[in-house]
Amino acid sequence: MADEPKTTVDRLITADFVITMNPTYDVYTPGAVAVTGDSIVAVGPRDTLTAAYAAKERLDAGNAVVMPGFVNTHGHAPMTLLRALIDDLRLDVWLIGYMMPVEGTFVNPNFCWMGTQLAAAEMIRSGTTTFMDMYYFEEAVADATVQAGLRAVCAQSVLRFPTPDAGSYDEGLARARDFLMRWKNHPLIVPAIAPHAPYTITTDLLEAAVRLALEYDAPLHIHVAETAQEVEDHRKEYGIPPVPWLKKWGVFEAKTTAAHCVYLDEGEIRTLQHYNVGVAHNPSSNMKLASGMAPISRMLEMGVNVGIGTDGAASNNDLDMIEEMRLASFLAKVNTMNPTALPARQVIEMATIMGARAMHIDHLTGSLEAGKRADLIVVSMDDARHMPYFRHFADSIYGRLAYAMNQEDVRHVMVNGAWLMRDRRLLTVDVEALREETSALAQKIDAFLIHREESVLNKLVAIGGVAQDKTFEVQVKVRSNDLTSLKLRLHASPDITFLRGSQRTQYDTYFIFDDQEESRLRYREDEVRPLDSDELIDVIYRLTLTTTAKEREYDRSVLLSRARFDAPATRSRRFYHEYFKPQRVIEIHKTRRRYHIRYGGTDFALNLDQIIKPEDGGSFLEIKSRTWSRQDAERKAMLIGELLKTLKVPDEALIRAEYVDL
Amino acid sequence: MADEPKTTVDRLITADFVITMNPTYDVYTPGAVAVTGDSIVAVGPRDTLTAAYAAKERLDAGNAVVMPGFVNTHGHAPMTLLRALIDDLRLDVWLIGYMMPVEGTFVNPNFCWMGTQLAAAEMIRSGTTTFMDMYYFEEAVADATVQAGLRAVCAQSVLRFPTPDAGSYDEGLARARDFLMRWKNHPLIVPAIAPHAPYTITTDLLEAAVRLALEYDAPLHIHVAETAQEVEDHRKEYGIPPVPWLKKWGVFEAKTTAAHCVYLDEGEIRTLQHYNVGVAHNPSSNMKLASGMAPISRMLEMGVNVGIGTDGAASNNDLDMIEEMRLASFLAKVNTMNPTALPARQVIEMATIMGARAMHIDHLTGSLEAGKRADLIVVSMDDARHMPYFRHFADSIYGRLAYAMNQEDVRHVMVNGAWLMRDRRLLTVDVEALREETSALAQKIDAFLIHREESVLNKLVAIGGVAQDKTFEVQVKVRSNDLTSLKLRLHASPDITFLRGSQRTQYDTYFIFDDQEESRLRYREDEVRPLDSDELIDVIYRLTLTTTAKEREYDRSVLLSRARFDAPATRSRRFYHEYFKPQRVIEIHKTRRRYHIRYGGTDFALNLDQIIKPEDGGSFLEIKSRTWSRQDAERKAMLIGELLKTLKVPDEALIRAEYVDL
Repeated sequence: MADEPKTTVDRLITADFVITMNPTYDVYTPGAVAVTGDSIVAVGPRDTLTAAYAAKERLDAGNAVVMPGFVNTHGHAPMTLLRALIDDLRLDVWLIGYMMPVEGTFVNPNFCWMGTQLAAAEMIRSGTTTFMDMYYFEEAVADATVQAGLRAVCAQSVLRFPTPDAGSYDEGLARARDFLMRWKNHPLIVPAIAPHAPYTITTDLLEAAVRLALEYDAPLHIHVAETAQEVEDHRKEYGIPPVPWLKKWGVFEAKTTAAHCVYLDEGEIRTLQHYNVGVAHNPSSNMKLASGMAPISRMLEMGVNVGIGTDGAASNNDLDMIEEMRLASFLAKVNTMNPTALPARQVIEMATIMGARAMHIDHLTGSLEAGKRADLIVVSMDDARHMPYFRHFADSIYGRLAYAMNQEDVRHVMVNGAWLMRDRRLLTVDVEALREETSALAQKIDAFLIHREESVLNKLVAIGGVAQDKTFEVQVKVRSNDLTSLKLRLHASPDITFLRGSQRTQYDTYFIFDDQEESRLRYREDEVRPLDSDELIDVIYRLTLTTTAKEREYDRSVLLSRARFDAPATRSRRFYHEYFKPQRVIEIHKTRRRYHIRYGGTDFALNLDQIIKPEDGGSFLEIKSRTWSRQDAERKAMLIGELLKTLKVPDEALIRAEYVDL
Repeated sequence: MADEPKTTVDRLITADFVITMNPTYDVYTPGAVAVTGDSIVAVGPRDTLTAAYAAKERLDAGNAVVMPGFVNTHGHAPMTLLRALIDDLRLDVWLIGYMMPVEGTFVNPNFCWMGTQLAAAEMIRSGTTTFMDMYYFEEAVADATVQAGLRAVCAQSVLRFPTPDAGSYDEGLARARDFLMRWKNHPLIVPAIAPHAPYTITTDLLEAAVRLALEYDAPLHIHVAETAQEVEDHRKEYGIPPVPWLKKWGVFEAKTTAAHCVYLDEGEIRTLQHYNVGVAHNPSSNMKLASGMAPISRMLEMGVNVGIGTDGAASNNDLDMIEEMRLASFLAKVNTMNPTALPARQVIEMATIMGARAMHIDHLTGSLEAGKRADLIVVSMDDARHMPYFRHFADSIYGRLAYAMNQEDVRHVMVNGAWLMRDRRLLTVDVEALREETSALAQKIDAFLIHREESVLNKLVAIGGVAQDKTFEVQVKVRSNDLTSLKLRLHASPDITFLRGSQRTQYDTYFIFDDQEESRLRYREDEVRPLDSDELIDVIYRLTLTTTAKEREYDRSVLLSRARFDAPATRSRRFYHEYFKPQRVIEIHKTRRRYHIRYGGTDFALNLDQIIKPEDGGSFLEIKSRTWSRQDAERKAMLIGELLKTLKVPDEALIRAEYVDL
């Protein structure tokens, strides 16, 4: 036996404990892992492996654990750059008031590259070897990840809104296709697509995303049921909860990972299990944003693969899977009022192999098994926090890791057979360079926010209830002294279907601001009556903020693209005037007959308006439509042109200005 | 001005941020702290202090925060030695099955000293400078704390049960008095007393503890309303919840700190506020043991001083106040479903000055203010997790600390003007020595638990519902062939008051074990009837485990002291026989007339028993009483002697054996 020649491997790592997270949960005390190239050659008892293998490089870690690196199943890596931008705010104020405007202004490929490098530094130092990402300019995220040497599933976001990397969702889809094509078969990156969430997409967009995922055999990442409000709104709009709705649109035909899943019923959990949808549980984020407590114990009982995620650093505020793991266990215990829920071994399983399963890459990583990529960490057990060590029950090593480990214990990190950290020193990320670059960026963002303190949107957001409306607006206005005959022509056309209508008396007050965005805030009291009666059925009070519009003129219409925010006006006009302190105020009152019509298979709003203040303000026909998609907007602009021809409106009657600008 | 002579101080520490936690929350960027001897001389802007003071030692910390050290308001320091002994169990199984037997066997002054040293190592490395402790042999805890250089309020426990440091509660009270006397006016230690919890004390014991606290002006530490079950049981027993009950017994006249307070109503919170009772909130422990979520936001709103604690390492499993702080904020947010709950600055306040207030030592520590003791930490902001740094809103430094700080960032720790850690190197605790000592202890505990795997108690505990009964039992038995005339004499005595009674038919099966503890497990079916009727009103099924008794004979009675555990018997006798596999089985059936009487102001149980199996087993009078106090037991033994004289029972009729031994 002694003469039997040893096989030579690249690296042999030994330690007092080797935790495999293989299907039989083998733990070797002491144990060893042999690595050649990017892969694990063997895992087993130390003496067996040292007898069988000669190694070019040998690491004897002693009182330490060798285990699979952590798998962070949900995050937005570049958002490290927005960490602690502001904390402890309402979700809508935080998101609409801070995250979205700063992202809209600052997110570019360089931002994503730099933010991902910063995220990589944190993740490596806290023992993460693989992560799932969803953001913009995902090719920059992938690039920075490869440079850091980490493994990732990178999902390019598509939303119905314009995003920092796409002016419309058509552009977003094109960008996603390009990304899937270019990164296919990369040794570290699995490219994926992320239709962001049910409430930020359209069914068209969703179907297109699923088609792309299936075409490229790519994972699909999506936020699902993160807040109670979102689920309630979804039920109101579609009559069913998010999971059956996603199923209906074919999402679960793809290799899907659903982030959050805080509000699911039993049937929805069963659906996720049936379609092998992975779940990414984000305890810190769900607690910090007060989203709620996900039914993780139930999901695990029902056989769903649940991984653990940090979410973005803006809602965490770090990317430490060790904290997240501990918190997942604690939260499950207090949520079910059962201290035996989510025990140590199971939570470590979630943070490693089950996370890899939830991301559909468990053939590559998540456990120490021969043939898998060598993604591992070496965790020192030397610190006082790991004393004493009891051996009387078998799972004690898992308890020590799950409940007392700190990232300071992570000494060495290897991904794909290459060392990324030795003795807590990062080998692939230059943190000092990042310190300077991130500091310069933070100064710019600070300046932007300080300047914006006077911004109308910011102040609107601060008083709550604000929602962003669709971005593309197609409209046309025609001055007409004879609304009656126009109405007759409308009714006479066989191509126009009337859907419903109302009479309005609208008292609009425009607050005009001389700020950079040329903000206009409209306060509207809208008296609603049926078309055929004078009975007042409702008075609607609303605030609408619009900023500089980018215009594009068409033959017979104008296409506006601009940020537009709506909020219920729960206080008086006087209050808003004092609160916002506009530079000018313009009042426009009008009576409006509003018709919802269908033309060319498409819905339009059609207004017959009589201006009553200023006096003799004239009467007008307005045709309007709003959408999230530029392509859709252009199609509608064409249809409006046709419609005007049908109504025999002469070109010279067309007006492109708003009432307030007349 | 340049010529003005500088005052010389011992130490001057400067940093980019000095967070004072003084009443106006001053933050100096950059700032400085001047220290002479044990105290802070000045805190302010860096340039002001460097101009005013010359220093024997100067530390310029640069990109770092100087702030008050953390104040850990609740824990059991020596329990670090029981860390990860076993995890993820039901509270009763964990406590009665593991913690209590191991503590009973292993806790001695050396255990407490060593465990406290280990706790001190962890606490210093995670930035804690002051803690509140409740355990046994508290003089050893205080001693180890002084050696480590930390500040602590050390509370000597008193319980109605025998404890590792006191065979009875009288002994416990004597020990507490001695401790309060000897440690008064120590520069680092504030001695205190800890009546453990409402459910582990008696009202006598509570009153005695309050008297001691008032006599020595010592803080009083107590567990309050940790679990729902405990509060429900308390309401059942006393008709009121714990807080008004404690108030009734005068506890809040002392400087009290109440640990946990998970289940309080509005009125109870108002009472705590009114009496300036501090609360120690323990988020990790409350989550890990699934105790519940304390109404912390409400307590803060109502003006209660709430500090943060780690609890013992056995239920945490580390002593890291940074994790605890983050968790306190997260838990409050998800508990109230409000992301603005417990914002960063407030949670840092709880972890420092408010914690000191809750412990009634805010005149000494908790904030950086001239005149207070120099208890401070230096936290590096160099790590990737602290990038970038936004300045646009004032509280951002608190957010960075509360949500992204890790103990690795704590570089230097000072208590009472002395350095305890520099550059993460401990200066006062020898961790290597502790590694050897704790390892030797763990081996002994492992051996004890492995041996005990066969123990009857362990198996009883494993099936649940077990409660420990009183420890001291005074009893006497008299064989009497004429129960009727004995009964007449009983009724005739003017000194004996009858309270209530019942008729029983008791079918007892004794499982006898040949183990070291000479365990006996009794399975009893107890048919209950009124004294004057044959109507069956209840059948009670119970298991009672007793182990070797220490006996002490009195003139006319016997005093037994032994562990005794009760549990409802919810399964069949056959099940228990198979489950426990006893060496022998003995059956004893009897009819019993049970009287509850009062004699000499004291309640006794008096049984007139007729043995029906074995046949001709004879008839007996039994007088019994149980108590937690040895002194009380001795008093009762005397009374039983008198009672027997009143009943004219001849000495030779006395039997000291149990029925099963006859």
